[in-house]
Amino acid sequence: MAKVSPRTLSGFMELLPAQQMKMERMMQILRDSYARYGFTPLDTPIIESAEVLLAKGGGETEKQIYRFQKGDSDLALRFDLTVPLAKYVAQHYGELAFPFRRYQIGKVYRGERAQRGRFREFYQADIDVIGDGKLDILNEAEVPAIIYDTFHALGLSRFKIRVNNRKLLNGFYAMNGMSEKAGEIMRTVDKLDKIGAEKVKQLLIDEVKMLPCKAENVLDFMAICGTNAEVIEALERYRGMDATFDQGLDELITVTKYLRDFGVPEENFAVDLTIARGLDYYTSTVYETEMCDHPEIGSVCSGGRYDNLAEYYTDKQLPGVGISIGLTRLFYVLNEQGLLSDDLVTAPCDALVLPMTEELALRKAGLRVQLYGEKKKFKAKMSYADKIGVPFAVFIGEDEMNEGVLSVKDMRSGEQVKLCPDEAAAYMAKRIAELNSGAVIRE
Amino acid sequence: MAKVSPRTLSGFMELLPAQQMKMERMMQILRDSYARYGFTPLDTPIIESAEVLLAKGGGETEKQIYRFQKGDSDLALRFDLTVPLAKYVAQHYGELAFPFRRYQIGKVYRGERAQRGRFREFYQADIDVIGDGKLDILNEAEVPAIIYDTFHALGLSRFKIRVNNRKLLNGFYAMNGMSEKAGEIMRTVDKLDKIGAEKVKQLLIDEVKMLPCKAENVLDFMAICGTNAEVIEALERYRGMDATFDQGLDELITVTKYLRDFGVPEENFAVDLTIARGLDYYTSTVYETEMCDHPEIGSVCSGGRYDNLAEYYTDKQLPGVGISIGLTRLFYVLNEQGLLSDDLVTAPCDALVLPMTEELALRKAGLRVQLYGEKKKFKAKMSYADKIGVPFAVFIGEDEMNEGVLSVKDMRSGEQVKLCPDEAAAYMAKRIAELNSGAVIRE
Repeated sequence: MAKVSPRTLSGFMELLPAQQMKMERMMQILRDSYARYGFTPLDTPIIESAEVLLAKGGGETEKQIYRFQKGDSDLALRFDLTVPLAKYVAQHYGELAFPFRRYQIGKVYRGERAQRGRFREFYQADIDVIGDGKLDILNEAEVPAIIYDTFHALGLSRFKIRVNNRKLLNGFYAMNGMSEKAGEIMRTVDKLDKIGAEKVKQLLIDEVKMLPCKAENVLDFMAICGTNAEVIEALERYRGMDATFDQGLDELITVTKYLRDFGVPEENFAVDLTIARGLDYYTSTVYETEMCDHPEIGSVCSGGRYDNLAEYYTDKQLPGVGISIGLTRLFYVLNEQGLLSDDLVTAPCDALVLPMTEELALRKAGLRVQLYGEKKKFKAKMSYADKIGVPFAVFIGEDEMNEGVLSVKDMRSGEQVKLCPDEAAAYMAKRIAELNSGAVIRE
Repeated sequence: MAKVSPRTLSGFMELLPAQQMKMERMMQILRDSYARYGFTPLDTPIIESAEVLLAKGGGETEKQIYRFQKGDSDLALRFDLTVPLAKYVAQHYGELAFPFRRYQIGKVYRGERAQRGRFREFYQADIDVIGDGKLDILNEAEVPAIIYDTFHALGLSRFKIRVNNRKLLNGFYAMNGMSEKAGEIMRTVDKLDKIGAEKVKQLLIDEVKMLPCKAENVLDFMAICGTNAEVIEALERYRGMDATFDQGLDELITVTKYLRDFGVPEENFAVDLTIARGLDYYTSTVYETEMCDHPEIGSVCSGGRYDNLAEYYTDKQLPGVGISIGLTRLFYVLNEQGLLSDDLVTAPCDALVLPMTEELALRKAGLRVQLYGEKKKFKAKMSYADKIGVPFAVFIGEDEMNEGVLSVKDMRSGEQVKLCPDEAAAYMAKRIAELNSGAVIRE
């Protein structure tokens, strides 16, 4: 028979079993972490009506979208989890309690140009808090505090959540009479990291057509840095010149205070005036999260506060705050950098039983147990045990049957002991717990 | 602004939060259950090349498939988890250990005519064991035994796993010289439940063009019933007339023996000669699972043994055995029948803290805790607590602050107690464990 070559599309992640186990573990930590803060899990369709999904329309997004006809229906695959959330909240408004706190971990689709580390199908892991008309500023601190907790639970400590406030920026541009050019200026200032202050200044003058003194003002402002207290002190010097600026500064002060109250260490968050977020719907606090030792990756977790989640679907004012982890990309990068722990058990089971009936007792002890029933030579069986990386092989031969014991072989140390089933279960469970006690990510 | 009406496509399930919590709980039980038997989780893309996905081609499937162009690529959404598994195993053959045991819980797509209880996007939950060249018959008993365990863990006891063997059927048709019509006969016999023996007999004579005596032979065979021992005894009377039949009978005897060894109670499995499974790739043991009190639903979990998983992709002989739960449909039906427990906590959190800082200690105790930061009247806060169905509200007012205690209100009983944070955490954790101690499904 002519064969079709089995292959996976470029830009689609498909992992081998041991890698997939690491991914699952990360997802489980995210689920547990979000649930601990009272977020409810949500699952929305991957396919939506194109009209609904593209209600906002235009932009880069539309070019990248997977859109197709099925019968008479114009369909599209979701490209993020925010638009489906907006639809969901507008649609089920009457049945939800506000603030509505949801998390969603799901696949999204963008037909980007395929390149290393860029995915067309990828997981996003989002949390959002949506208010009905109003939403307290406390949420703008809690959301990054949850991200701190989550990253910490994954095993990361060398990361920084950068925080800024859009009102602060808008106010600053207003006080300099540059409001109309604010968008252009922000896009240019975004290049600071890449091309440096001198070149940015030249671009501001040449292309944005700013006066040199104004361009300098912008660069001076963006250059404000230091500890969080120092940055805020520097910002206080601008107070009183623009009401929006003052409001943004007050909010920033409140958010950083709450962040400390929530127990986020000073080294894990930083007020950073260069963060603006491209999307135009953020209205005050915005976040980006950088891995300190890998700034080249860019932000692995971003979000912010918005005033109007679902304006394309409803007249209800639905302010919210949310943050999104690009999980597939984060996993890819951590894996590439060798930051995913190999110490934890990635085998499909904890114990491989060769060959008969006693395995049930072990399973009741919470161990993941595989009964190996294939009629193979001993060597082939052990080679299987090696290949799947199982921590323990359990032998039940005639001797063991007569004595009512199991022979348990620690596949890592090679040590072999005879134990009665209960003892064997406890012995293995203890060792498995040790093996799995580390973090998923090792820096 | 003109609004787009927020809506979800027909045939796509989107649940409200409390329902979604029930679905998540079912999925977690499936994951835990499959992992306990040493199955490794797999995640494959939802989009594949149409050529790969439709390698087998033809049939009902192709009409239902979601297929579209993106750039130059001819793409399709997976319509089951078996074809992606075949692709995966063929593609990664050299990197896998055999038997390869994987579970996958994922969404699949079929553009069926929309009707109540039929879904176009739905979850399947599959387990498969794939051998390299050979696979021991033990697996054909273990797979339904795992399903027994899984259904049991969900809270179901009134279900029956029907077991048959294709060799037995093929052998029976051969010994009656009806091999060529076997397919047609099986499709007609499939209607037994619906139209009864008399009408099936007439169809066999009129449409399949069988001699009346042969049609009677078929109906006599299909009418064999009783306890598993009685059915096997009746089948023994056919032994010696066809080698394939005899092999099928031996396999059936072995599988039922192992099923007992695995601890599956006699009332939860039944040898049933009317089960054949439509798909032509099953080659020996086949399964269907019926809910005893709801036979009208049909099979909620089906599968069987196949000889050649990936013949369209590779020359390697890859026999396997697998079973699939149609999870979305099962959930829908259980929900409709009122069989999903409302006793378990479906609130997004266990405790709602009003309003300040002490909540961290509770969270460390494993409770899901939401801090309610909105500046609202007390009544509005309590109405929110009611609406999300939270088991506990925790008040921290000035008195509580001074005394170093928390006021904990049991929202179900209305009882309110003052406790120090550690006591409060333990008190609530105990009650939450009680509330969640039941099964997901209550029959």
